[in-house]
Amino acid sequence: MPERPQALFAMTAENVPRVFPPEVLARLHESVDIDPGPVAEDFADPEVRKVLARTEILVTGWGCPVLDAAALDAAPGLRAVLHSAGSVKGFVTPEVWRRGIAVSTAAAANAIPVAEYTLAAILLAGKDAFTARDRLRAGRAFPGWEFVPGIGNHGRRVGVVGASRIGRRLLDLLRPFDLRACLADPYVDATRAAALGVPLLELDDLLRTSDIVTLHAPETAETRHMIGRRELALMPDGAVLINTARGGLVDHDALIAELRSGRLSAVLDVTDPEPLPADSPLHELPNAFVTPHLAGSQGNEVARLGRAVAEEAARFVAGEELAYAVDPGALEREA
Amino acid sequence: MPERPQALFAMTAENVPRVFPPEVLARLHESVDIDPGPVAEDFADPEVRKVLARTEILVTGWGCPVLDAAALDAAPGLRAVLHSAGSVKGFVTPEVWRRGIAVSTAAAANAIPVAEYTLAAILLAGKDAFTARDRLRAGRAFPGWEFVPGIGNHGRRVGVVGASRIGRRLLDLLRPFDLRACLADPYVDATRAAALGVPLLELDDLLRTSDIVTLHAPETAETRHMIGRRELALMPDGAVLINTARGGLVDHDALIAELRSGRLSAVLDVTDPEPLPADSPLHELPNAFVTPHLAGSQGNEVARLGRAVAEEAARFVAGEELAYAVDPGALEREA
Repeated sequence: MPERPQALFAMTAENVPRVFPPEVLARLHESVDIDPGPVAEDFADPEVRKVLARTEILVTGWGCPVLDAAALDAAPGLRAVLHSAGSVKGFVTPEVWRRGIAVSTAAAANAIPVAEYTLAAILLAGKDAFTARDRLRAGRAFPGWEFVPGIGNHGRRVGVVGASRIGRRLLDLLRPFDLRACLADPYVDATRAAALGVPLLELDDLLRTSDIVTLHAPETAETRHMIGRRELALMPDGAVLINTARGGLVDHDALIAELRSGRLSAVLDVTDPEPLPADSPLHELPNAFVTPHLAGSQGNEVARLGRAVAEEAARFVAGEELAYAVDPGALEREA
Repeated sequence: MPERPQALFAMTAENVPRVFPPEVLARLHESVDIDPGPVAEDFADPEVRKVLARTEILVTGWGCPVLDAAALDAAPGLRAVLHSAGSVKGFVTPEVWRRGIAVSTAAAANAIPVAEYTLAAILLAGKDAFTARDRLRAGRAFPGWEFVPGIGNHGRRVGVVGASRIGRRLLDLLRPFDLRACLADPYVDATRAAALGVPLLELDDLLRTSDIVTLHAPETAETRHMIGRRELALMPDGAVLINTARGGLVDHDALIAELRSGRLSAVLDVTDPEPLPADSPLHELPNAFVTPHLAGSQGNEVARLGRAVAEEAARFVAGEELAYAVDPGALEREA
């Protein structure tokens, strides 16, 4: 085996064997010299600093400590930060960019389960399955084998809010279905929307014309409560709001009022606040299907993130272009 | 417009505008001469018999009366039966075949929503979403942003029981996902399984090795209670049984016992009996997600069936091969 650059894990230590199970760790080992320990949970730890001194590649993950000037001074040979989770905002400081260190993220792999969860929610909400289940339980109502109007996934309009990685992956996943997708995203122009294969609408028009609205925007000062009383009122009777992004995008008081009226329904994997208070009406409303923030990478899905990093490490060490390089300029409007 | 053969609707009359809304009826009109009335709900009706006497194509649907010798005698020019629903077993008699009448069904179009519902159930069950929602509601349990082991759709094994139209459509839909599908079907050989792109297993082996088992077999004397106590016991701890086919495939007493133990969970769109009795434990068990037989074509989805018939009528009138001809020999082992 040729000499491989020194690498170091920087993340919550207990996650290392989850994100890098044996077969994924073996793949990573093909490109870099890395040990499952010590894991950098603190860059000031003397054991960690010994490895940092010769580290060229930092394999980061959830819980990575902040990469400030002090940490970077301890890693004079650092050439790349390969992140095995979503956003690098929490720990990549301007100092990282200033020093010309390459940064890559497994955010695309992290988008997959969220887009999949959203697709499933669209398909079941389109059949009114969540509410029908609750009605069946509560009143034992059984429409039987009669025709049930107003439901179905043939020609239903799906409004995707945000061409984020998750939004784009969702658009891909929607292709085999007879659903009509459209997109609202202030950072997308007509050319890019055409490349994505969807009509581009203003948010208000998307809300007015979609049977299902699904949110894939980051939470920023600009997007907080982007779906409030006015926006919900634009949605047609019977429409469904899906939120697998961030609870703060939605004004929950306004949403609860619409759900109480029975006019809309919702599938929420994220809420505001989170967790919901025990007395939140969202727990009991039959037209709210609320799950505890599980759409993102969970269980066996976190190994997909490790796999993405192992493949990225192979490219970096081979001198190839990174597939998932982070663009510091675009970082501001991401989550 | 060239002279078009006479056609007649034979189905529950109120379904005609649902299955053949204006744009679909217009498409059908391009090939055949057909009126929305009279609709044959009874072949002995004198008004119906007047049209039958010159009918070449019967457009059938749910509620079609039995096509016995008496009915066929009233339609001496009948050349084709185009069915806008699933099985033709209920009304196509041996006399139809004896007279050389072509029979076609929209069963492939009818398979689409069931396969879609099943895909959605697989993806959400893989995230434990149904049970997590109930736990969140009942105990307000919120695992938060912690790692939740034992869940996820990365590498999960999905056992498809039955390469029916729905089973095959499901296998197609599963392709974009990181799921490992396998198949059990006594009527499929290794060559055909290879063409479907899945490993072929004996049912017992499929049950032993699948994280999710989904049923797509017809209900026949042979398949009734094919999933009983012995078969459920083969499934690994934490596995999920999905049934969108027929309730009778599963021994519900045995299933309820396994669900009560918490060892397995289930997503059931069909049950035995159906509807469930009000006191069935399936209503309350947190690991049973039961919906009221809505996976099949419902709401806007029934127009897809009409569209399939309109396209088939165009082929028939043009002298082209039917895309969905029913093979009387294969009919016996279908639902």
